[in-house]
Amino acid sequence: MEDIIRKIREKSPIRVYERSVRNILGAIVSSKNFWKIVDLSEEPLPLVADVIEILKEKGYVKIDDGILLTDKGKKLIDKEGIEGAKEIQCKHCSGRGISIEDFKDILKDFERIVKDRPLPKQEFDQAFVTSETVIARIAFMLSRNDIVNKEIFVIGDDDLTSVALMLSHLPKRITVIDIDRRLTDFIMKLSKEIGYSNIDILTFDIREELPDDMRKKFDTFITDPPETIYAIKAFVGRGISSLRAPGCAGYLGLTRRESSLDKWVKIERVLVDEFKVVITDIVKDFNEYVNWGYEEKTRAWKLSPVKKKPLHNWYKSYMIRVVTLDESVGFDGKIEVDEELYNDEESSTT
Amino acid sequence: MEDIIRKIREKSPIRVYERSVRNILGAIVSSKNFWKIVDLSEEPLPLVADVIEILKEKGYVKIDDGILLTDKGKKLIDKEGIEGAKEIQCKHCSGRGISIEDFKDILKDFERIVKDRPLPKQEFDQAFVTSETVIARIAFMLSRNDIVNKEIFVIGDDDLTSVALMLSHLPKRITVIDIDRRLTDFIMKLSKEIGYSNIDILTFDIREELPDDMRKKFDTFITDPPETIYAIKAFVGRGISSLRAPGCAGYLGLTRRESSLDKWVKIERVLVDEFKVVITDIVKDFNEYVNWGYEEKTRAWKLSPVKKKPLHNWYKSYMIRVVTLDESVGFDGKIEVDEELYNDEESSTT
Repeated sequence: MEDIIRKIREKSPIRVYERSVRNILGAIVSSKNFWKIVDLSEEPLPLVADVIEILKEKGYVKIDDGILLTDKGKKLIDKEGIEGAKEIQCKHCSGRGISIEDFKDILKDFERIVKDRPLPKQEFDQAFVTSETVIARIAFMLSRNDIVNKEIFVIGDDDLTSVALMLSHLPKRITVIDIDRRLTDFIMKLSKEIGYSNIDILTFDIREELPDDMRKKFDTFITDPPETIYAIKAFVGRGISSLRAPGCAGYLGLTRRESSLDKWVKIERVLVDEFKVVITDIVKDFNEYVNWGYEEKTRAWKLSPVKKKPLHNWYKSYMIRVVTLDESVGFDGKIEVDEELYNDEESSTT
Repeated sequence: MEDIIRKIREKSPIRVYERSVRNILGAIVSSKNFWKIVDLSEEPLPLVADVIEILKEKGYVKIDDGILLTDKGKKLIDKEGIEGAKEIQCKHCSGRGISIEDFKDILKDFERIVKDRPLPKQEFDQAFVTSETVIARIAFMLSRNDIVNKEIFVIGDDDLTSVALMLSHLPKRITVIDIDRRLTDFIMKLSKEIGYSNIDILTFDIREELPDDMRKKFDTFITDPPETIYAIKAFVGRGISSLRAPGCAGYLGLTRRESSLDKWVKIERVLVDEFKVVITDIVKDFNEYVNWGYEEKTRAWKLSPVKKKPLHNWYKSYMIRVVTLDESVGFDGKIEVDEELYNDEESSTT
């Protein structure tokens, strides 16, 4: 095992632990599908690809239409006492812990009304979540008392969370910003179709400073940022800056697919030390993304040892909720980065 | 509203936000039962008691066999747009997101075997969780790959999690420490009954330094500390110190009943800045406690405006999982506090 880890350390810019290799081996026990292995192992995709390559070089796995353990690999599994990865989340709520039973009508309306949505654009790191995920977000935010009579700020909305919010008729007011005019136009069109007028929609690049009238204004924000420290500052920092008082909440998605635990702790430090907000919830695999169509153009595709499109929704993210305190501070300055907003060494889907 | 908040600030040593008062008012809309109001509002019990007293003084609530809004209170609710607190967690998994379907046999065995367990002692801040909670912990830890073939350290075990671990036969080895000889004796007796020998049981005060052979030894620890910063250092810090490598996991419970969000963020900073571990999961109301019998001797009872014993399990805690990284450091020194290990201004059940 030590020899494997040394080889991977030589190859990968992402820090690797024995546990990471064990997680990946456990996932290979459970599935031969590359995307599923990434999903189950909870390690960053580029690291999974590197580990599989080293395991192949060393004769522990072989690759045909999938990733399979060789006899040598099976012996390693036995010797190291590695078990297949277990999936035992609750089937009724997909592990989210929240019931969407009371929101079936909104789910149906949502699915119907967003049928002709703009397709994801790689340029903006777009990839939307399933309709169930959007509705579960509404239920989750409602359970935390962050919707009813609240002013809600949606920062980037290829998921169309604002549309589900409109259909719920629960918020006091909704503001949506997105860099992509196709999306803001589409949301505008749907707001007319729904007959919902308490909404402001703005085409806006989050690298710019927020307009003054969006600071200290909202009760709740929700965003699904690209997973670089820059993007956390841009999306989440501005979200916090937009909240009007202590006790307001923000929601953000964060994956293990593009972020190692070493990056996670850095992001958590930005949250609790720099923004001085408290983290109240971290819910695994809350956000499930629809496979977005431009897979073949991603770094993930280049890295995948088997060139087969994913058949199940392998891309998931944790839902994180933060709450402001007396001392909380957001981020206001302009952000002068381009590519680096979207990509670092752990990212692979943009 | 501002006037109410000013009055509460004069009275309570716990920091109060407008949102806290709104949470408590929302909970009063949903229930007249004091314990349920604490549960739903997610504010520390002593603060809830203070807020109710001020609301009563100002004529917004009246108290008979429960806490009720007056007409003046109802007008305030309308004017402020406050809604009743919503409970929309998944009924199938009680909001934990984890299925215990495959563990029904262990649940049955567990309930049978722990029947004659020692009753909770106030002296040690004891209060045990429901059997479902214990089994859900096993399922949760299993889903995170923290049990099978792992050496597990249980730090304080009035919940008897070690017994469920033995019944699962999944760990490689279990070590339990507890300050209460009644418990260590009981666990010893059950280990013989089960015929499980891969267990070490030690009567131990966590304020002392861990024996050398318990440092850097385990793969996983679980603990449910009293909620003071001292206790977090003692229980969680030693837990981290006991883990053998990066990528190992620790589990701890944390309530909103005894800890405000201002205390939460301090605890989170201890975790990510001082211990340098990453927080991977925070699951609401995962741990549900059986009402522990010494209610009438607690500060909570003194503070309760209505002297009625709780009928439902109102005391719940979040489950927090942390994972070690290369840089993680635990806490090893001796802790020279007495009472302060268990109590601060936000605590009320010890």
